Amino acid sequence: METLVQLGKNAAAAKYELQKLTTDAKNRSLFAVADALVRESGRILAENEKDIAAGVKKGMHPGLIDRLRLTKERINGMAKGLRQVAELVDPIGEVMESFKRPNGLIIEKRRVPMGVIGIIYESRPNVTADAFGLCFKSGNAVILKGGSDALYSNRAITDVIRDALRAEGITEDAVQLIASTDRAVTQEFMRLKEYVDLLIPRGGAGLIKSVVENSTIPVIETGTGNCHVYVDEFADCDMAVSIIINAKTQRIGVCNACESLLIHEAVKDKLLPELYDALNKYQVEIRGDEKVAQVIECKPATEEDYGREYLDYIISMKTVASVEEAIAHINKYNTKHSETIITENRENAEKFLNEVDAACVYVNASTRFTDGFEFGFGAEIGISTQKLHARGPMGLKELTSYKYAIKGDGQIRL
Amino acid sequence: METLVQLGKNAAAAKYELQKLTTDAKNRSLFAVADALVRESGRILAENEKDIAAGVKKGMHPGLIDRLRLTKERINGMAKGLRQVAELVDPIGEVMESFKRPNGLIIEKRRVPMGVIGIIYESRPNVTADAFGLCFKSGNAVILKGGSDALYSNRAITDVIRDALRAEGITEDAVQLIASTDRAVTQEFMRLKEYVDLLIPRGGAGLIKSVVENSTIPVIETGTGNCHVYVDEFADCDMAVSIIINAKTQRIGVCNACESLLIHEAVKDKLLPELYDALNKYQVEIRGDEKVAQVIECKPATEEDYGREYLDYIISMKTVASVEEAIAHINKYNTKHSETIITENRENAEKFLNEVDAACVYVNASTRFTDGFEFGFGAEIGISTQKLHARGPMGLKELTSYKYAIKGDGQIRL
Repeated sequence: METLVQLGKNAAAAKYELQKLTTDAKNRSLFAVADALVRESGRILAENEKDIAAGVKKGMHPGLIDRLRLTKERINGMAKGLRQVAELVDPIGEVMESFKRPNGLIIEKRRVPMGVIGIIYESRPNVTADAFGLCFKSGNAVILKGGSDALYSNRAITDVIRDALRAEGITEDAVQLIASTDRAVTQEFMRLKEYVDLLIPRGGAGLIKSVVENSTIPVIETGTGNCHVYVDEFADCDMAVSIIINAKTQRIGVCNACESLLIHEAVKDKLLPELYDALNKYQVEIRGDEKVAQVIECKPATEEDYGREYLDYIISMKTVASVEEAIAHINKYNTKHSETIITENRENAEKFLNEVDAACVYVNASTRFTDGFEFGFGAEIGISTQKLHARGPMGLKELTSYKYAIKGDGQIRL
Repeated sequence: METLVQLGKNAAAAKYELQKLTTDAKNRSLFAVADALVRESGRILAENEKDIAAGVKKGMHPGLIDRLRLTKERINGMAKGLRQVAELVDPIGEVMESFKRPNGLIIEKRRVPMGVIGIIYESRPNVTADAFGLCFKSGNAVILKGGSDALYSNRAITDVIRDALRAEGITEDAVQLIASTDRAVTQEFMRLKEYVDLLIPRGGAGLIKSVVENSTIPVIETGTGNCHVYVDEFADCDMAVSIIINAKTQRIGVCNACESLLIHEAVKDKLLPELYDALNKYQVEIRGDEKVAQVIECKPATEEDYGREYLDYIISMKTVASVEEAIAHINKYNTKHSETIITENRENAEKFLNEVDAACVYVNASTRFTDGFEFGFGAEIGISTQKLHARGPMGLKELTSYKYAIKGDGQIRL
């Protein structure tokens, strides 16, 4: 097996080739890779079957088995995703700013690839193709470390991509897979700072925490979402119920789902009975504070509940006396992901937008819209919950950096 | 002494106040702080004297003593810097982008403060005022950890700033100093992720490496510069000499000084004798490869020399056979800071601009222009050599993040 350092060197060499590729060459390759994935789907499915069999044998949770499983349809979905990325505007080469200094220097701020991106993810084989596509279109080499349970699948997908690239005359080291199930290798990968410019963990809170704690490579934190809906005293209660049901139940296992509800005391008697019936239809468990419990049946909410990302049919509820109290509660417990206020009052809406500290702050809409596709980016590598570099949904532009190109005619500093 | 966690909590509370300040309030406070520094300069100088005495007693290098020393003039310089920051455009509140989605959602990308910024720096007391000014104007709370040798000076400056802020009705926790000389406290500070959004180390390579290795807070790497001048075969040799002398000798101890020279073989016989004489005037030691040694007197350059940031009157020199070889050498040895090509050939110039991996890439100009003031940013917190978030000179904008503010009228995701 090649060592990690060798993978790093390969990627670092590939990045210089990739940054020079024309948009046409990149798009042609993305289409070729998409076709290859469909053409070679038999081979990929056969390898995937090995992962599934191993997973079943070790008693993996059915939900995880489902996440791991590939089908012809899912492979077609991966190919479709790559073709969509080919259709997106190429971010590379854009002159972001240009200005002339009094001494005659002309300074251009040019958008350039990040270089080498590392992605650490759990056992979702589709991420292998998705991550390659986004990194490749934005001119980056990528080193992938997928979940151990998907190793056969990831290796098959990566091999197909590399073969297709080679046939197009493109360096196959545009994508490399760390084909190891050794945790120590993952730890070592996080310290491959000499070769890797950016590391993105995609997965649960545990994975992300481990990467943040151990990486020496700059990291973008993605994904954990303890998202709130706040129903203001000036809310349209029917709209509130509709948005809460959507944000809580439309898809429970995602980071932009609602986990906690704040209700202004003035509307609790009107809102809660109607909301209770609506949540009941989805068998959502309610954990409320005392004032909520005075109106509807619920379990008591603990301090710990307010900080939980349930990813389940459970919601915590708390009453507040003002928009200020709601904002303070959110800023204390949230994960800086997505927050929404339901109100017809413009002043409270602006206050909430300005003062809540989160990547995406909404007025009268579901938190579920925090998504690269819903934002119109055409793609998404993840949702950043940190403030450095990128915040919220990350598309192609968020996988780029810039450089200053400066032209002179002999200027020296005085 | 207050614990670090308490400082973190104070800063986190202050950030919500600071993000709400109007531009006028911020500017008024900056002027008030500038006046206070001048008014209280006696008190600051008395405290600085304690640091100087301790430094002299322990035999500190005269260069470091000079860096540590404050004078009336230097304090006036700090005050002037704050007044200049007050004159700069406030980056906060800018709507960077705004778009409407087909479902009617209006998405605004708004520039917001980073929140809490941590700065770790060496024994230069002026950084205390500079860093406060830039963080404050960009709406951030700042926690400072200055060099232990400057503790009395830093405490005096911070006290004056805090007093002046309080008198203006602004939270004094806009700036806090970690008043400890214990290295373990600095290590703990680097892991104060719950309260600090961004950590910027300012100083030598050792400090920066330590922060990158140990911080769990997102870091922006600044400062180390192994900068090259490449004299192409199509160079104007007089211009080359002028730029090399400027880049090497105008100020030797800075990150944008030239440390290494690459010379196309075709011009070495013409360039080197003239350059030798010019460098000799500054007593610059030359370490060259064999082909350089055939033309001028020099010490032999080792492999290690090519990777060195001398910060001294020393320069390494290497001949190359092509612009491609020059680019490959630079990409192998540089620190991604500033690189320049001297050429009259447009094709080679564009090749160099595109393919050299560095924050600032120049044609026919000195590397010494990599500087926030020279770029017209009006200020500088440091020069980033990483690709995440900010690259090259960092001004006020680079101390900000953004959030998405999204307005709907009841939209739910289907």
